Amino acid sequence: MITVGIVGGTGYTGVELLRLLLRHPNVQVNVLTSRTENGRRVDDMFPSLRGHTDLQYSDLNIDELKKCDVVFFATPHGVAMKHAEALVAAKTKVIDLAADFRLQDLQQFEKWYGMQHACPELLKDSVYGLSELNREQIKQANVVGNPGCYPTTVQLGLAPVLTSSDALVKPESIIIDAKSGVSGAGRKASLGGIYTENADNFKAYGVAGHRHHPEIVEALENISGQKDVFDHILFVPHLVPMIRGMLSTIYIDLTEAGQAADLQALYEQFYANETFVDVMPAGSSPETRSVRGANQLRIALYKPQPTKLVVLVVQDNLVKGAAGQAVQNMNLMFGFAEDAGLNNIGLLP
Amino acid sequence: MITVGIVGGTGYTGVELLRLLLRHPNVQVNVLTSRTENGRRVDDMFPSLRGHTDLQYSDLNIDELKKCDVVFFATPHGVAMKHAEALVAAKTKVIDLAADFRLQDLQQFEKWYGMQHACPELLKDSVYGLSELNREQIKQANVVGNPGCYPTTVQLGLAPVLTSSDALVKPESIIIDAKSGVSGAGRKASLGGIYTENADNFKAYGVAGHRHHPEIVEALENISGQKDVFDHILFVPHLVPMIRGMLSTIYIDLTEAGQAADLQALYEQFYANETFVDVMPAGSSPETRSVRGANQLRIALYKPQPTKLVVLVVQDNLVKGAAGQAVQNMNLMFGFAEDAGLNNIGLLP
Amino acid sequence: MITVGIVGGTGYTGVELLRLLLRHPNVQVNVLTSRTENGRRVDDMFPSLRGHTDLQYSDLNIDELKKCDVVFFATPHGVAMKHAEALVAAKTKVIDLAADFRLQDLQQFEKWYGMQHACPELLKDSVYGLSELNREQIKQANVVGNPGCYPTTVQLGLAPVLTSSDALVKPESIIIDAKSGVSGAGRKASLGGIYTENADNFKAYGVAGHRHHPEIVEALENISGQKDVFDHILFVPHLVPMIRGMLSTIYIDLTEAGQAADLQALYEQFYANETFVDVMPAGSSPETRSVRGANQLRIALYKPQPTKLVVLVVQDNLVKGAAGQAVQNMNLMFGFAEDAGLNNIGLLP
Amino acid sequence: MITVGIVGGTGYTGVELLRLLLRHPNVQVNVLTSRTENGRRVDDMFPSLRGHTDLQYSDLNIDELKKCDVVFFATPHGVAMKHAEALVAAKTKVIDLAADFRLQDLQQFEKWYGMQHACPELLKDSVYGLSELNREQIKQANVVGNPGCYPTTVQLGLAPVLTSSDALVKPESIIIDAKSGVSGAGRKASLGGIYTENADNFKAYGVAGHRHHPEIVEALENISGQKDVFDHILFVPHLVPMIRGMLSTIYIDLTEAGQAADLQALYEQFYANETFVDVMPAGSSPETRSVRGANQLRIALYKPQPTKLVVLVVQDNLVKGAAGQAVQNMNLMFGFAEDAGLNNIGLLP
Repeated sequence: MITVGIVGGTGYTGVELLRLLLRHPNVQVNVLTSRTENGRRVDDMFPSLRGHTDLQYSDLNIDELKKCDVVFFATPHGVAMKHAEALVAAKTKVIDLAADFRLQDLQQFEKWYGMQHACPELLKDSVYGLSELNREQIKQANVVGNPGCYPTTVQLGLAPVLTSSDALVKPESIIIDAKSGVSGAGRKASLGGIYTENADNFKAYGVAGHRHHPEIVEALENISGQKDVFDHILFVPHLVPMIRGMLSTIYIDLTEAGQAADLQALYEQFYANETFVDVMPAGSSPETRSVRGANQLRIALYKPQPTKLVVLVVQDNLVKGAAGQAVQNMNLMFGFAEDAGLNNIGLLP
Repeated sequence: MITVGIVGGTGYTGVELLRLLLRHPNVQVNVLTSRTENGRRVDDMFPSLRGHTDLQYSDLNIDELKKCDVVFFATPHGVAMKHAEALVAAKTKVIDLAADFRLQDLQQFEKWYGMQHACPELLKDSVYGLSELNREQIKQANVVGNPGCYPTTVQLGLAPVLTSSDALVKPESIIIDAKSGVSGAGRKASLGGIYTENADNFKAYGVAGHRHHPEIVEALENISGQKDVFDHILFVPHLVPMIRGMLSTIYIDLTEAGQAADLQALYEQFYANETFVDVMPAGSSPETRSVRGANQLRIALYKPQPTKLVVLVVQDNLVKGAAGQAVQNMNLMFGFAEDAGLNNIGLLP
Repeated sequence: MITVGIVGGTGYTGVELLRLLLRHPNVQVNVLTSRTENGRRVDDMFPSLRGHTDLQYSDLNIDELKKCDVVFFATPHGVAMKHAEALVAAKTKVIDLAADFRLQDLQQFEKWYGMQHACPELLKDSVYGLSELNREQIKQANVVGNPGCYPTTVQLGLAPVLTSSDALVKPESIIIDAKSGVSGAGRKASLGGIYTENADNFKAYGVAGHRHHPEIVEALENISGQKDVFDHILFVPHLVPMIRGMLSTIYIDLTEAGQAADLQALYEQFYANETFVDVMPAGSSPETRSVRGANQLRIALYKPQPTKLVVLVVQDNLVKGAAGQAVQNMNLMFGFAEDAGLNNIGLLP
Repeated sequence: MITVGIVGGTGYTGVELLRLLLRHPNVQVNVLTSRTENGRRVDDMFPSLRGHTDLQYSDLNIDELKKCDVVFFATPHGVAMKHAEALVAAKTKVIDLAADFRLQDLQQFEKWYGMQHACPELLKDSVYGLSELNREQIKQANVVGNPGCYPTTVQLGLAPVLTSSDALVKPESIIIDAKSGVSGAGRKASLGGIYTENADNFKAYGVAGHRHHPEIVEALENISGQKDVFDHILFVPHLVPMIRGMLSTIYIDLTEAGQAADLQALYEQFYANETFVDVMPAGSSPETRSVRGANQLRIALYKPQPTKLVVLVVQDNLVKGAAGQAVQNMNLMFGFAEDAGLNNIGLLP
């Protein structure tokens, strides 16, 4: 049984961490912080938790956090990097659900997040927490940067072809047309976020540039071992009037080798031993609701034209795209069963 | 052709007024004010208006407003009453879509809206703009207080039985279980209003007390000519995950005379000449989408038990419940056809 | 470890039973039948189950079902009563999620369900499965009729005042204004059920009469020990554009004793030891999403007028209103912990 | 004033035609047919029409239709082609909202629609009703095949670059990632169409092949005057949980000339005189709700990478994508103002 702290427990990733961790067999949540709700019971803010916990919010107290075995940061960008060194020094592991430990390229970080990095040395030692692809490093990590939701779908959607010893695809041709539910915008007052501005509506956003673009580029470079070829890929996110769920439609040109290959078999084999990645049978159309509330990502492949591969990837943006993967990383870091606390079934309908 | 000003053109009732008035055959909108968007084109904020107007927001300038024949206030409570006297003095008519001219009882106004009334004398001269019930007074009015959305459904839902020369119902027994779409909360940033807090969810709100309760009481007293009997009626509003639409389910005990009466015929006769009130055939179940975008209110009656009447009333809260009724009142005030600019058909599906 | 059969595994209560039972520590699902999908894998129809089961649909084979310790009927009305006697004779317990064992009054059953009862003797021995109210009988039962979703909210919402030794309320005054998500209509092709007919829309239905009305009357009579006083209560259901969730707003007149009583305390005490019934603090507004996917029912009380009690009750219609309560009943019947397999936390947002 | 018949008035395009035509200044609807609803008032089926028409459904009677000046077919594929010749012979013009007169390639028609064409000669004389691109031919046409909803967005989204005298784009590179509201599936009972299967969910469909693909290819060939280069374009439609609305995200590689060109200016100039096509300012993000209920299509352009053009196109699939464009074509065929009956403003919110 390890002890856990959560910094920033009033957002959707915070309450989602609680939903998972309060049922985790190896974990006790001891600390839950909030700048604004100090002293309030968490189940007063989130009545779904009534009957499941007596936790109260407290102010962020670094000494209390140091007593935890692991601290999750479910905070805005820029918070985790201020406290991570002190925690690591106290042998407390850190999992950041924001972007502080996602990008190794400091210039990109400053450009997209508008701040200097507070601990570049620790950043170098940190591990990018895409569980399936960096499992061994995560096991050894003290600090894990939990991936962005969109980048998770892109990396797991493309890893089998990008890591193949054959050149199956033309990496510079990648187009990612991504669609997300509204919870990706977080739990905060904003005019653009209100019900009446989003319901029965569909739009693209961030077409001219989105923070997850550099993360995708850096991650695909690491996966493929190729530099520069991903600089001009397209990434266009869209907003779907639904609460949870994300679907990325990824288009990529096949090389001759790729056209000849059995890609369905390649993907099935690549993920054969993965609990949380499901390669669906040929012809399937993955739906976001098939993973609602579950730490699951499903993939389907199509070749509607001989030279083109279309990869469909779905996940729950708050689970495999955020809190679920964070718990999966914690399981790896502490040697628990990788699916401990994560084996609940998606809510359908 | 009259000239129109709209004060407060960045909210949902403002854009709805524009949707109706820009197509109105007798009207030209000359002024559109906003505290925050001075100089911005309105179709930049509301792209649905692109191609239909070149209007820009301006600061509120009372001299410009005085040049208009009528000014609509689509503002928060408390704004119209500050400017109404100056406008009336300049022979500009005023239609307030907020609550400044709804309640004649000043104590109730102060209690529920937290402010003193700025022009109690003018309030006395103003007319409550429930078009069908106060038509003749509205024609003569200089200042009209446009009714609240919920009270509109209750008044039109109960007027036939409350105005009957027979005592058909027991007024003290009224229970109003009302349900509204989210646009009723307006267009403003708020945590409680965001998509993720409202979609796929249902709840009651304001059970302990809602501003429309005193308005309903005062209005029913006026309609029925009875005092005190409505003080303890129940009004419980609920929030429906839909953009527009309102349904009130009204329960009322029948007297013996009421049990014997042909209430369906009574209602049909009462509204026989009303363009915008539709008494549906017995057995109908009115749906909010049947009035989406239309200045229409539909009523259906049930007597599931011998002593009980159930009245179902639907409207679009932004049209018959707000902007549409305001235009209807303007039509009355200026002698236009009552349905001028209001004859569009509801959007179904 | 007991063995379970599910008859009718292609509807929403079927897949919900699987979601719960596949994670239940004391259960193994051995049989899953379907008239139309014999031989198909269940996770092919419901991809949310991929990775969690290899179950295939089979034709209904009574001999296979007899080998199970318990059989759930997640079928249309009229199926369970054809097979229950054979199963009970084989010492297999039966839990019917349809209406075959809800009404003891055979005339009412025939009137509302349009069929004669196939096993009236067994019906007499069956137990009505409102877990919290009939716990001891359920423990001994061979056949349980799982309550309807609406009646569950009404019974648990009124039991504390109806069972009080004091006459706190006037039973004949009850009005139930109920609202349900669309999943209550089941998983079947119907024009009225399609997305475009239900989204962004709200309506009442069944105002003239609904099958749950006689069930509510009979149940309240049993709870209160009073006959005839509930015959003329009102029950008006409405359809909310959401997937899961149910809120009943119950209005009831208080006696003088009721007006004087501390009803909040009464309710809290009545349910003090109940895991799945949550009496919220005074002033709370229960939301359906607070119980999404959870076997939970939450209650809040209001007295907006001195003589009136308003009870707000929420549940997930597919869980506490159907599959979850069925599992709770199974737990009682087999002596498992009452919350075995039912302790998951609601999905919010 | 012309007389109009509508064949197939129980679907969504039928009721949408009525919404527009009942307010059209030059039109009287005389005939409305239905196979199943003969004798029923249309406003009994669609209460949104109550107060606007007394029309009743009749059986399809070709002699009655011949008396009309124009007949719209809002029917399944294969109906219009059975009756068109008789109507044209009687000097009645025909506008088919289904696919019978969309594809000139008979083999493609048979392949995708599973039937032989009933009148190939008349098909040759018919005109493809993309109003803005084929305006002059439509004016002369006796039979118009109204375009599919997706193809409308693609053609208007690409016409400026495909008709340019310079080779600005690489036509073979086109990828269309399209998203549609659920009303595109029509008004019919189907399990896949029910609310609970679509709400809070997102998925792709028809990835392996969709009927609009050959229509897009043929149309782009006609627009560009180029053959064969479009055969391998990608078209992947997705289903959005909203009622109305369609957004196509179109990706296309730019030639060097295209990279150098001012495409924003090119589009603005191309559509400068079009009432119903709106090229939004650079940086805009078109939302489907900005065209809800309006015969409007909005376009925005992005060049997120130097060699790539991204075209965003939105429309209401039932208006500019179906009934509205059909009325626009009628206006052209009869010499009415092109926006007659079509100048209503979109419903936002």
